[in-house]
Amino acid sequence: MKKKDTAPQENVISTTPFPASKKIYVPGEIHPNIKVAMREITLSDTVDSFTGKKTPNQPVTVYDTSGPYTDPSKKINVHEGIERIREEWIMSRGDVEELDGFSSTYCNERLNDKSLDHLRFNHIQKPKRAKKGKNVSQMYYAKQGIITPEMEYVAIRENQKLQEAKRLSVQHPGHDFGASIPDVITPEFVREEVARGRAVIPSNINHPESEPMILGRNFLVKINANIGNSATTSCIEEEVEKAVWACRWGADNIMDLSTGKNIHETREWIIRNSPVPIGTVPIYQALEKVNGKAEDLTWEIFRDTLIEQAEQGVDYFTIHAGVRLAYVPMTAKRITGIVSRGGSIMAKWCLAHHKESFLYTHFEEICEILKSYDVAFSLGDGLRPGCIADANDEAQFAELETLGELTKIAWKHDVQTFIEGPGHVPMHMIKANMDKQLEACGEAPFYTLGPLTTDIAPGYDHITSGIGAAMIGWYGTAMLCYVTPKEHLGLPNKDDVRTGVITYKLAAHAADLAKGHPGAQHRDDALSKARFEFRWEDQFNLSLDPELAREYHDETLPAEGAKIAHFCSMCGPKFCSMKISQEVRDYAAKKEIEEKSALKIGLEEKAEEFKEKGSEVYL
Amino acid sequence: MKKKDTAPQENVISTTPFPASKKIYVPGEIHPNIKVAMREITLSDTVDSFTGKKTPNQPVTVYDTSGPYTDPSKKINVHEGIERIREEWIMSRGDVEELDGFSSTYCNERLNDKSLDHLRFNHIQKPKRAKKGKNVSQMYYAKQGIITPEMEYVAIRENQKLQEAKRLSVQHPGHDFGASIPDVITPEFVREEVARGRAVIPSNINHPESEPMILGRNFLVKINANIGNSATTSCIEEEVEKAVWACRWGADNIMDLSTGKNIHETREWIIRNSPVPIGTVPIYQALEKVNGKAEDLTWEIFRDTLIEQAEQGVDYFTIHAGVRLAYVPMTAKRITGIVSRGGSIMAKWCLAHHKESFLYTHFEEICEILKSYDVAFSLGDGLRPGCIADANDEAQFAELETLGELTKIAWKHDVQTFIEGPGHVPMHMIKANMDKQLEACGEAPFYTLGPLTTDIAPGYDHITSGIGAAMIGWYGTAMLCYVTPKEHLGLPNKDDVRTGVITYKLAAHAADLAKGHPGAQHRDDALSKARFEFRWEDQFNLSLDPELAREYHDETLPAEGAKIAHFCSMCGPKFCSMKISQEVRDYAAKKEIEEKSALKIGLEEKAEEFKEKGSEVYL
Repeated sequence: MKKKDTAPQENVISTTPFPASKKIYVPGEIHPNIKVAMREITLSDTVDSFTGKKTPNQPVTVYDTSGPYTDPSKKINVHEGIERIREEWIMSRGDVEELDGFSSTYCNERLNDKSLDHLRFNHIQKPKRAKKGKNVSQMYYAKQGIITPEMEYVAIRENQKLQEAKRLSVQHPGHDFGASIPDVITPEFVREEVARGRAVIPSNINHPESEPMILGRNFLVKINANIGNSATTSCIEEEVEKAVWACRWGADNIMDLSTGKNIHETREWIIRNSPVPIGTVPIYQALEKVNGKAEDLTWEIFRDTLIEQAEQGVDYFTIHAGVRLAYVPMTAKRITGIVSRGGSIMAKWCLAHHKESFLYTHFEEICEILKSYDVAFSLGDGLRPGCIADANDEAQFAELETLGELTKIAWKHDVQTFIEGPGHVPMHMIKANMDKQLEACGEAPFYTLGPLTTDIAPGYDHITSGIGAAMIGWYGTAMLCYVTPKEHLGLPNKDDVRTGVITYKLAAHAADLAKGHPGAQHRDDALSKARFEFRWEDQFNLSLDPELAREYHDETLPAEGAKIAHFCSMCGPKFCSMKISQEVRDYAAKKEIEEKSALKIGLEEKAEEFKEKGSEVYL
Repeated sequence: MKKKDTAPQENVISTTPFPASKKIYVPGEIHPNIKVAMREITLSDTVDSFTGKKTPNQPVTVYDTSGPYTDPSKKINVHEGIERIREEWIMSRGDVEELDGFSSTYCNERLNDKSLDHLRFNHIQKPKRAKKGKNVSQMYYAKQGIITPEMEYVAIRENQKLQEAKRLSVQHPGHDFGASIPDVITPEFVREEVARGRAVIPSNINHPESEPMILGRNFLVKINANIGNSATTSCIEEEVEKAVWACRWGADNIMDLSTGKNIHETREWIIRNSPVPIGTVPIYQALEKVNGKAEDLTWEIFRDTLIEQAEQGVDYFTIHAGVRLAYVPMTAKRITGIVSRGGSIMAKWCLAHHKESFLYTHFEEICEILKSYDVAFSLGDGLRPGCIADANDEAQFAELETLGELTKIAWKHDVQTFIEGPGHVPMHMIKANMDKQLEACGEAPFYTLGPLTTDIAPGYDHITSGIGAAMIGWYGTAMLCYVTPKEHLGLPNKDDVRTGVITYKLAAHAADLAKGHPGAQHRDDALSKARFEFRWEDQFNLSLDPELAREYHDETLPAEGAKIAHFCSMCGPKFCSMKISQEVRDYAAKKEIEEKSALKIGLEEKAEEFKEKGSEVYL
């Protein structure tokens, strides 16, 4: 952790494909040049224990966020960055110009600083911007009735080839709290949802490497992983691998929350190598530029930071424009005051200057910048509760109302917008957050941090928050910001990131199941069938974390033979309930009677017997 | 793990007290001889960052399941067992007789087998049983209007001294779905709840070592940890430490699910050293006695097993009497058939014999046995769903109806009874389980395994199930059976047990908060206040797992100085939002103006300004 900042090393990047998995690419129909990446998991046959007859199990296609890193046919060179798959789509729209140089003063200072050459990304591209008078946001296109390649991409991606497998109808009907989830996601449905602001496709024109993904309550619940260095630890190469690592395990988006030195250069490496959208909190970097003195922040410094980051390719900005002067005193009696870093910076600024923040007063100018690059707003919840006691208080909901007003202004500019949410909330007060957000923000996607459902388990806050995340995802939240085991205690290492991502992946999936998202149950069913049939390898391979599942299994029964054994380590051979269940079925089969009719006969006999004996329960 | 079975070694038992904690004992009023064990956590002072003025923080008393093991004044010798605190209470009721020997044939065979001497507990006591015609169940006493020492003990224990701290009113009102939770738990309230069957105090007269605890929807949500050896691994001494270990981290009850050889002797060691009630599934041992052939099971063998275990001191029996012949075929089309071991054993027996199981037909005889020792029923859900697809199906709910009928029969005998529940259930289908259970079983306490909210995360099933557990706890479930990370994959080691217990402890606590259990929020508030004030040591010490919290903190900032630093490792000194929040407050204080009025003035000025300018949001 104490290495000097250097350019990334290729060998630290994780590129191993998942077991029994291959990358497949589904072409578009409207846009035949798009190739939607998915992961196909091959399964072994079901073997009948009596006849030995083998029945093949169809492969299972799963949503894949790992990008080219898990495709052995792609050459990975972090010094060059990954393939710029959206470049052609973006340029072919004819509304974008390539600038001769960067528009941000700070960016140019860094570029001209020779002492930074050794840690600079090798192939910095010229920035793109909307031509004068043009709006390049997906929302703008959607409102014009245009189905972009990005929209078709996410439509295909969301369906996960489930139509083909005819798996849509065979699952529990969900309870979706008024969402409008169709059986099949069409490109036109995506367009409609983006047009009305109910979904967001983060897609900065300067981040053509990202594979389009969509946030919205009518789509699969997504997760975000935070990475970032800070003053105390970390270096650039570890940051790139952290992003790759987080995507590998399932992060749909990454937020780069770096606050240390060389943020600018680190960000370039991350974006150039990221197959998922990248978000930031620009105020963090702006604060660095004024040496950490919140009161010295100015609109000009902030504006330059927005442009700097937009031209690098950041896909969404967390902006705490809802922290209004009048709301700050509402937090004075809280147990934990203001816990959002951005929120506390802006609150301090407001108090120091005794006026509304420049984020609020310059909001329309921010919109003008964002729509020139298609950066989405992630309207920050600067006054979110930092403990159970402070949940759902006046300050929090006052800010939410303001975020609703700002959403409407952003939409007026066709700037894609989603809304951040808490935080720490006891279970019974979670739904009010969703309900108020839907109402105040016109169904703009909600993006919550957890929420944590208790304060008393530091070290396990991925779990305290995973509970709240699953619930609020069910209620309609579009994206869940992960929490790692180190929350409140320290910086996450790679294991923590993996644990945080998988925890949130399972919470998001639990939410999809509860909402009744079409086909969501297919993977559960495939895994459970494999489990019942003792197809251990298939069970591991269908897991969110195949490596850990295998590792845990092997701790007790390491032999290869145990993976085809018809029992497992928990109960040993005699007590395995699944084995006994199979025997129950086999018992009937052996007697050459169809199981159900055998039982039916038995029951009829029994019923007769009962009646004869006066239907007494006890004889 | 491959050691030979030997008598336990003292040095493997965990006895270290928790940091900054001392054991306190609260005396009874009705029964002055009872001493209710609690843990008191000492906190450091709050120091005003300007004046340096110190304000003491009151110690926090927490529910303590760790028994004498964390009391340095108690001598622990596993060869002798722990103090028999309930012995006097039990004998003084005058309705119990000490038998000359054990009533179970099998038990006597084992006792007479010299080859087992080396692994036998050293001080086996004579068994106790109700005198002829007497009923020694807490439910019987409760119905007679008697407040037993056990009842007063649990009343004091549930309150956690919160009345004294006057903390009951300052928390969020909960949403309790029709529970009847009083502000203060009185012994009379406990008696009423036990009498009407809405609560259970597991308290076999042959387990006088156990500290009374209560299960019921109007009490704190409890958790159960499963331990046990199996054919493949483990040895006796590890089993005893596993129980101590699980209690240490918060297990309110332990189920001994051993299925290997020497179950009888292992169980003796565990019970003699367990400060919490012990449950078992007697059919497992009965099956061992017929060499694993379910169809060879008989009522006589099962009956002898019940008596064997009741006289050793098992506090509750899981009995799968609800698996009726007619329900078995309802599971034929399931993806995972019957996944309850007990359920599948009984289903196999029913099919083999084509009749109702002896558990069902001999149910009243079982009641007669249980009331002679005050063993509680844990009516097993033998047909619980083993995957998402099978949730809430016909078989599951048919069995639940039968469990309701059996509950009423058990209550007729004044046998304490609670009901087991699933399993694997997607979030939106969890509440139906609770609602149906409450209705079918007359509010008898519900005791669920999770439920797991998705099937796709083996290795993380403590979390997939922790989500469901927290929710169903909120809805009214009295006890949550933990799931470890090894579920479905292997046998839990000590780390897994700790992770499982803490996960369930936090889920149970999240449920208490959501129900609005009086005083539940106190520990959250104390921890969050410590967090806000950078009292790191207090934050660790108030955690469910102080060791892990400290360890995680120290990974990033190991220096002792960092524990009094007014920042933490996540953001570094400049970006700490909590620090900035404090500065927001300090800012006002520095100007010698009361914070609120300062802001009020500012706001009024601002408001005037707004009005003058026509109340435009943007200028």
